[in-house]
Amino acid sequence: MIPKRLQDLVEALRILPSVGEKSAFRMALHLLDLPDENPLKLANAIINAKENILRCSICNGLSESAICPICSDEKRDKSVICIVERQSDMFAIEKYQKFRGVYHVLGGLISPITGITPDKLSLSLLKERVEAGGISEVIIALGFSGEAETTIFYIQKVLSEFPLTISKLAQGLSSGLEIIHADKHTLNQAIDNRKIISGGIMPDSYNTKRG
Amino acid sequence: MIPKRLQDLVEALRILPSVGEKSAFRMALHLLDLPDENPLKLANAIINAKENILRCSICNGLSESAICPICSDEKRDKSVICIVERQSDMFAIEKYQKFRGVYHVLGGLISPITGITPDKLSLSLLKERVEAGGISEVIIALGFSGEAETTIFYIQKVLSEFPLTISKLAQGLSSGLEIIHADKHTLNQAIDNRKIISGGIMPDSYNTKRG
Repeated sequence: MIPKRLQDLVEALRILPSVGEKSAFRMALHLLDLPDENPLKLANAIINAKENILRCSICNGLSESAICPICSDEKRDKSVICIVERQSDMFAIEKYQKFRGVYHVLGGLISPITGITPDKLSLSLLKERVEAGGISEVIIALGFSGEAETTIFYIQKVLSEFPLTISKLAQGLSSGLEIIHADKHTLNQAIDNRKIISGGIMPDSYNTKRG
Repeated sequence: MIPKRLQDLVEALRILPSVGEKSAFRMALHLLDLPDENPLKLANAIINAKENILRCSICNGLSESAICPICSDEKRDKSVICIVERQSDMFAIEKYQKFRGVYHVLGGLISPITGITPDKLSLSLLKERVEAGGISEVIIALGFSGEAETTIFYIQKVLSEFPLTISKLAQGLSSGLEIIHADKHTLNQAIDNRKIISGGIMPDSYNTKRG
């Protein structure tokens, strides 16, 4: 009864986050109701994005060129790397234009249960970056889950041979609150009060109180 | 900072129902995180659906052929037409396999404020259908909004010259409940207790109690 290609579309829409069968069905019918122009624009936007948005070869962030605008920005302080789980966390921090260092997008958190082993993350890229020198601090901005703790521990191990200050976001972010949903104050607090977990003394330069 | 094609994708995703900027952004990043295969499958599913799903030339329902499976099904009673606002309403009624007549998909409700005038709906197709003869009853299954009432009134006017029984769904559907969300019992009640609003005597054949 339901056209095959409609069923296919419903199935395909379910790859979107938080979209169950009912929502997917509603979306599919809505797309079919619309004049051709907009759904085809959506299809092309997906194809264009997938074909043209790459990973920055330095930070693993999304980029339309080999090196992303942040990594190629001469005004950014390349000596401080903020490690985030996903691109969206980076955008969340960037929105408030306080942090002036650079980023490293891990692409996930270590979670052996779901098959995310360290080699699935951009950790060797991170090590190469630190190895190349010029890094004074690594701020780990990963939230407070068990996976985050495991990942922080692992990053610390990977970077232990380098003379670095390694910090992690601390006060301000309440347990269970995702970085992407944090408000400006909470996020700034978390950056200001980051907790050194290995080596070094807290440099003043990145306290947003002074920023 | 945000890649242009990512912005384009976010914008394009907003044509989906109930998808605001935040959701669209989350969806876009999710699509970029996935391996190419699934997002490209989604893009192709949209293109395929838009290119290959047509409107049935009889009932205006979605169809992969010129005439949809219901209109070309010899076992369906072509003398009873159930008028629905959208395809999803038709699917909702079909799901319970009680109604054995055929459908007519209006494509909307008359709403002068939002620019939906009668000519935007498949009303002339409906009139042609009735004009061609063989129709004994038209069941209007449009819910209970002001727009629905206006549309029912208009359909009645359009069909007034024909010797038809025109009924509308009545008891069972509570005010404010959309057809697509009605449970089986409620929907069957509404079909059983449909109220004749013009001509004729209630035929027995479509009472689900006997079905």
